[in-house]
Amino acid sequence: MNEAVVGIDIGGTNTSFGLVSREGKVLSKGSLKTRDFEEAHELVQAVCADLKLQIQSLQKQYPGIRLLGAGVGAPNANPYTGMVEYAPNLSWKGVVPLQKMFSDELETTAKITNDAKAAALGEQMFGAAQGSRNFLVITLGTGLGSGIVANGEMIYGHDGFAGELGHVLVEKNGRLCGCGRHGCLETYCSATGIVRTYLELKPETDASVDSREITRRALEGEPEAQEAYRFTGETLGYALSNFAAVTSPEMIILFGGLVKAGDLLLNPVRTAFEANLLNIYKGKIKIKISELHETDAALLGSASLIYRQVFKE
Amino acid sequence: MNEAVVGIDIGGTNTSFGLVSREGKVLSKGSLKTRDFEEAHELVQAVCADLKLQIQSLQKQYPGIRLLGAGVGAPNANPYTGMVEYAPNLSWKGVVPLQKMFSDELETTAKITNDAKAAALGEQMFGAAQGSRNFLVITLGTGLGSGIVANGEMIYGHDGFAGELGHVLVEKNGRLCGCGRHGCLETYCSATGIVRTYLELKPETDASVDSREITRRALEGEPEAQEAYRFTGETLGYALSNFAAVTSPEMIILFGGLVKAGDLLLNPVRTAFEANLLNIYKGKIKIKISELHETDAALLGSASLIYRQVFKE
Repeated sequence: MNEAVVGIDIGGTNTSFGLVSREGKVLSKGSLKTRDFEEAHELVQAVCADLKLQIQSLQKQYPGIRLLGAGVGAPNANPYTGMVEYAPNLSWKGVVPLQKMFSDELETTAKITNDAKAAALGEQMFGAAQGSRNFLVITLGTGLGSGIVANGEMIYGHDGFAGELGHVLVEKNGRLCGCGRHGCLETYCSATGIVRTYLELKPETDASVDSREITRRALEGEPEAQEAYRFTGETLGYALSNFAAVTSPEMIILFGGLVKAGDLLLNPVRTAFEANLLNIYKGKIKIKISELHETDAALLGSASLIYRQVFKE
Repeated sequence: MNEAVVGIDIGGTNTSFGLVSREGKVLSKGSLKTRDFEEAHELVQAVCADLKLQIQSLQKQYPGIRLLGAGVGAPNANPYTGMVEYAPNLSWKGVVPLQKMFSDELETTAKITNDAKAAALGEQMFGAAQGSRNFLVITLGTGLGSGIVANGEMIYGHDGFAGELGHVLVEKNGRLCGCGRHGCLETYCSATGIVRTYLELKPETDASVDSREITRRALEGEPEAQEAYRFTGETLGYALSNFAAVTSPEMIILFGGLVKAGDLLLNPVRTAFEANLLNIYKGKIKIKISELHETDAALLGSASLIYRQVFKE
């Protein structure tokens, strides 16, 4: 082994980090609770303290190994500026120079992007999208995130904030979203969205129910839980048929907690997708579930930010 | 003048063609009725016969001038294969090798793409999008077409058919579209869409009314015609706010017959766009009307297919 890259994934709840080989193996890893750290620099210091130990250990095992850089996935990260800007799911205030903070602390190149775009880069380098130049990754976690690759390149948009497919409006006067608007896709198709659907279908349920519990109940055959999955899948499939008309991807990869439900989600997604698709696309676009292990995938995605840059030319 | 390019625009009604300078000047032009020719090869021969005379005349005027190629915009043109595939608005049947037909007949390089993508390339090279690497062009003609540029490149998608924004579904169980589905954007926002809206608002109108007449009536102050524009603009602005969340463009350029209505269309588009836009995009994305002359724009767009290829590196 001649080189390794640091991968860091900052989520609203957990922050995971580790070292990733060029072959896509997670060599070592750790995690922290994001909310245990009020300020960004406190989290950065704690993450880097652990990473430095991981790096030392790797260097003992493989003397002469080179650390190529650190890739970071974080909510509301702007790849053009290196800043995390007003992240509603983090306790940090305003604009945080996260890329520079990691670069200074680890004394290496750092690159940041948002978590969903990192996931898409990970799929392209190590997962289901290897060899594809036109695909979407949809992450179904607390919210709905996306990474759009066209002509082989990630679409960042003019300001770094392209690919907010979770905030495409799918229902006029629909559910209130965290963004302040009504009817955003992620209010229906996400871990929190399916809970809202389930509570509408079965209002007597304890409001602390989560998507994992709904999956369990659906797999056990509870009609309301199965209906919640059918509705979520149908809504997502319909939205994906519209996204297909924008970039005409070769495949759409679903990722995140909700996809653990497997065919419960995938069957209604595929049915609604094909039913609503424009003729010229029918039968051409594959909908797949990510084959990467969920925790590792985030690290692989973040690490691929560095690998794709270093080995591009 | 050292070089020129042939630009050809094949529409459902008219086919226009001419010679374009590198500075974006239309040096000579002609046009034919597309439907006067049953078969594609008949149209190609007639267009090329006229173009050969134009080329001879240009060569007399500028001895030694080089013809760099022929760019062709046509409905349902696939830039990857050079074929026009099952174009519903043309009398041609099946798959037509249009790129090769023009290349053989004119004995030069030919490139084809669909008319809306050609328009977008024209805006990038000669029009309102000069210098922009992330923008959309929306053509509001008989239907609604689009060209999406991200990271400086046209998005063609994996099959050559990206950018079918006219067929994004905006209304469940909405108006029947020529594609066989219900609720496509172009059934509301196009020259034919506004006629449908107007006829719904004023059913006693003679059904032969066209968008030009509706524009005239709206400018004269007729409430139903003004309402038709308000509804069309609002529907378009709402849809554009969703497209913004996909590629986060710097600007959106509106093009085609309907934009002659000016502020009648543009004001409701802008109002609905900003009102429905996700916070992070608000106030950042310009909506403009194309500054290119409509007939010339199609030729400039087609010609830029060749210019951008020749002068890329």
